[in-house]
Amino acid sequence: MRGWHVRNNCFCLRLGVTVAPSGVRAGDSAGPGFPTDYRKGRIKMSKRRIVYEGKAKILYEGPEPGTLIQYFKDDTTAFDAQKKAVLDGKGVLNNRISEFIMTQLSAIGIPTHFIRRLNMREQLIRKVEIIPLEVVVRNIAAGSLSTRLGMPEGQQLPRPLVEFYYKSDALHDPMVSEEHIAAFGWATPQEYDDIIALALRVNDYMSGLFAGAGIRLVDFKIEFGRYFENDHDMPRILLADEISPDSCRLWDYKTGEKLDKDRFRRDLGGVTEAYAEVARRLGIIKESGDTDNVVSFTGGSK
Amino acid sequence: MRGWHVRNNCFCLRLGVTVAPSGVRAGDSAGPGFPTDYRKGRIKMSKRRIVYEGKAKILYEGPEPGTLIQYFKDDTTAFDAQKKAVLDGKGVLNNRISEFIMTQLSAIGIPTHFIRRLNMREQLIRKVEIIPLEVVVRNIAAGSLSTRLGMPEGQQLPRPLVEFYYKSDALHDPMVSEEHIAAFGWATPQEYDDIIALALRVNDYMSGLFAGAGIRLVDFKIEFGRYFENDHDMPRILLADEISPDSCRLWDYKTGEKLDKDRFRRDLGGVTEAYAEVARRLGIIKESGDTDNVVSFTGGSK
Repeated sequence: MRGWHVRNNCFCLRLGVTVAPSGVRAGDSAGPGFPTDYRKGRIKMSKRRIVYEGKAKILYEGPEPGTLIQYFKDDTTAFDAQKKAVLDGKGVLNNRISEFIMTQLSAIGIPTHFIRRLNMREQLIRKVEIIPLEVVVRNIAAGSLSTRLGMPEGQQLPRPLVEFYYKSDALHDPMVSEEHIAAFGWATPQEYDDIIALALRVNDYMSGLFAGAGIRLVDFKIEFGRYFENDHDMPRILLADEISPDSCRLWDYKTGEKLDKDRFRRDLGGVTEAYAEVARRLGIIKESGDTDNVVSFTGGSK
Repeated sequence: MRGWHVRNNCFCLRLGVTVAPSGVRAGDSAGPGFPTDYRKGRIKMSKRRIVYEGKAKILYEGPEPGTLIQYFKDDTTAFDAQKKAVLDGKGVLNNRISEFIMTQLSAIGIPTHFIRRLNMREQLIRKVEIIPLEVVVRNIAAGSLSTRLGMPEGQQLPRPLVEFYYKSDALHDPMVSEEHIAAFGWATPQEYDDIIALALRVNDYMSGLFAGAGIRLVDFKIEFGRYFENDHDMPRILLADEISPDSCRLWDYKTGEKLDKDRFRRDLGGVTEAYAEVARRLGIIKESGDTDNVVSFTGGSK
């Protein structure tokens, strides 16, 4: 990890100004739950209603029906939330990285829940009915696959593997197969087929995207949701949640260095710095640039 | 469990004489590895070569190429062989029950490895290349499914579930999906489809068979193998291994009483007695009959 702008234990990250398609200028919100100007005063939201709070994100009711606001926290957890930390600035980076990847995927025709980024920590998304499955795509053996199937970490898989885990903290997200998904109605056979096809397309695109940035996409987790455009239409499957170093395994092509949440899981240190490196390599943030958008990471991450 | 012939701590089970299709009369072998007359003196095998020894069975080289002899031990293990016992007579019962079910399945057109029973503890089988998957079919939530997915034991599943576990003691038989099976080449897509179709047919037939005997088929584990009839032909998929109360969950329809290996796993006692009850209800053994074929279970099982 090289080339970061680090000054006296204060990791300064310069974020370029991004203008969303609607002309909304990015600006920070004061924090979760706090009143925020979403459209430069046009919509002044008072105390917002929390729809859902997860380990790393909060979902608020959106400004229009069928929308939500996704807030990225700095909170990080691993091993069923037994390990916890707050990593200054992580949420800001994940918001930017996820925006970037979702926008790219949208451009190649993969439908996503992402509408636009609102500010440093928030994005406007379509409200979907989340399919209760974590969809994991693996290119290289690592993590739980290595453990479960006794494969050395780093071993190239003969083909990309799509795995499903039933979303349940209480049950520790057990792996399930198409049979369970069909029998318990977590997804219809058509949705299952769509999800597999979309997951493999996401994998193809992201493998290329990261390869172009000198990063090996080892595996990643994505989620999907049903979007009901009209009451009378069939729901559409959208890519939902986030795509960030929290949900991917990313290894530097040359050095093998981990640039993802495994730095936190395995106490390797420099977690946020690694996330910033990913953002920098993808061209999302610059090493020097517009000083209007500086995020200070005081203390860094461990 | 009623109607057994029990006398002074000596559980006597009368087995009717069964004549195998080839005219081989059932007779006990002295024990594993011991010389045995397979066809009334026609084939005298001296010290036999063990091809494979598992937890509950031994496979010996068969009398002809492409055959094996499957010997049923009394050894019982559970929880990755951390719990062990010897259950007098269990092997004899499983040999008979598995013979009965395999023969029945064969009659409805399900290809199996079973050729004929040789004696009390042995059967002649086709030599197959075992597909390294335990195929589990479930009708009612129980055991690891209940644990993994948080479903109360006894809950009817919306449809029969076919699960796959990779056969590896070292890895504790991890659950796998079609994706792993295809990626690692454990079975071809055609074999996978055949296995699912056969497993569901076995489930249909066995559900009926046991229902007719007042027993609910909760779930069962089967294995499949590739049989190479000729060097130049494609292998055929055969049902292999065994089907017995060691590999099924069987509950009395009225009382819910367990008539399977869970009696051993959960220290319920009366394990062999339950297996004998299953054999009796299926009409395999009689309560009183030919005294030529008496198996004494001294001490019973715990």
